[in-house]
Amino acid sequence: MDYPSKVLAKAVEEISGLPGIGKKTALRLALHLLKQPNSRATGLGTSIISLVNEIQYCRECHNFSDYEICEICSNEKRSDELICIVEDVRDVIAIENTGKYRGKYLILGGKISPMDGVGPHQLNIPSIEKKLQQGLAKEFIFALSATMEGDTTAYYIYKKFKNSGIQFSSIARGISVGDELEYADEISLGRSIINRLPYNEKD
Amino acid sequence: MDYPSKVLAKAVEEISGLPGIGKKTALRLALHLLKQPNSRATGLGTSIISLVNEIQYCRECHNFSDYEICEICSNEKRSDELICIVEDVRDVIAIENTGKYRGKYLILGGKISPMDGVGPHQLNIPSIEKKLQQGLAKEFIFALSATMEGDTTAYYIYKKFKNSGIQFSSIARGISVGDELEYADEISLGRSIINRLPYNEKD
Repeated sequence: MDYPSKVLAKAVEEISGLPGIGKKTALRLALHLLKQPNSRATGLGTSIISLVNEIQYCRECHNFSDYEICEICSNEKRSDELICIVEDVRDVIAIENTGKYRGKYLILGGKISPMDGVGPHQLNIPSIEKKLQQGLAKEFIFALSATMEGDTTAYYIYKKFKNSGIQFSSIARGISVGDELEYADEISLGRSIINRLPYNEKD
Repeated sequence: MDYPSKVLAKAVEEISGLPGIGKKTALRLALHLLKQPNSRATGLGTSIISLVNEIQYCRECHNFSDYEICEICSNEKRSDELICIVEDVRDVIAIENTGKYRGKYLILGGKISPMDGVGPHQLNIPSIEKKLQQGLAKEFIFALSATMEGDTTAYYIYKKFKNSGIQFSSIARGISVGDELEYADEISLGRSIINRLPYNEKD
């Protein structure tokens, strides 16, 4: 595709490098920005540049942070006894949005996936050892994807640390709220029968 | 949604201001940029900022350009007798990609659409008068959307300038290459019968 201007071509090329955005969408976005006041695009451009230059990773949990220790890890109201092990920051945001968890997190930075060339050494597993050495944690909760890769990762970590005296748990799997049994997959339905819970009228 | 970092929150907010991009996609894009080398995001941010600050509009056709007169308008090999009237720069790119047009363009900057509050005064219609005064153009070709708004715009321009001695034409409407008649809409099929062409074995 030939663009009438080199700066437009450059912007389209850069925008279309983002995942899920092709040349046509990139052009549409660039034209949209050109129709807005200049401050809009300047704000967008500046915020993208400061994102990568200013963001830090929390030393404790590997979450993104504006400081050396993130707001969750430095929050004294949150329990140090529970550590929720997740794949990435989106999972932290999702769990925080439920408002049901008052412990801390540990972000692995991915899951073991030989197909994608990700082994245990690419993950933040040494931080689990660090948590164990600190001696405050009592329970590690696996909140990983319900996929083969997620299960493999949980099993790897469990096997490595099962003799350290710490308790391991996994978030409940089962039928989601609003699901009809008829359409639920067999594995989820099977697991939800095996892991049935005492009936509680308050749920 | 609560983000673990203010720079991340700011970037997500700015990215999700783009059309068709919600908060979740914006977060996914921001996390993608954080996984790339910093130069990637810096390049993207810089190109967006220079896009709006450096781009110019061609004085003649209102196309985007790096100069006062765009490469198409200043190309002496292209005919000044044909002026193709289009809505925006994407149409110019689409027509240029066909390689079938050697005239010049005039970008209206939209189409008459009372529903969206766009009237003739928001469009580059004075530039049509300027082209008429220059006296080089012999034919105006309407290449507008095949919609009510596109037709209204063409009709408005035609009515305003029909006594100026210039010839008006419209790009052909009909059945697209690869279309099956069975699934073609009635209006297109009807028009393609009325505007049938002499059979040409070279087509």
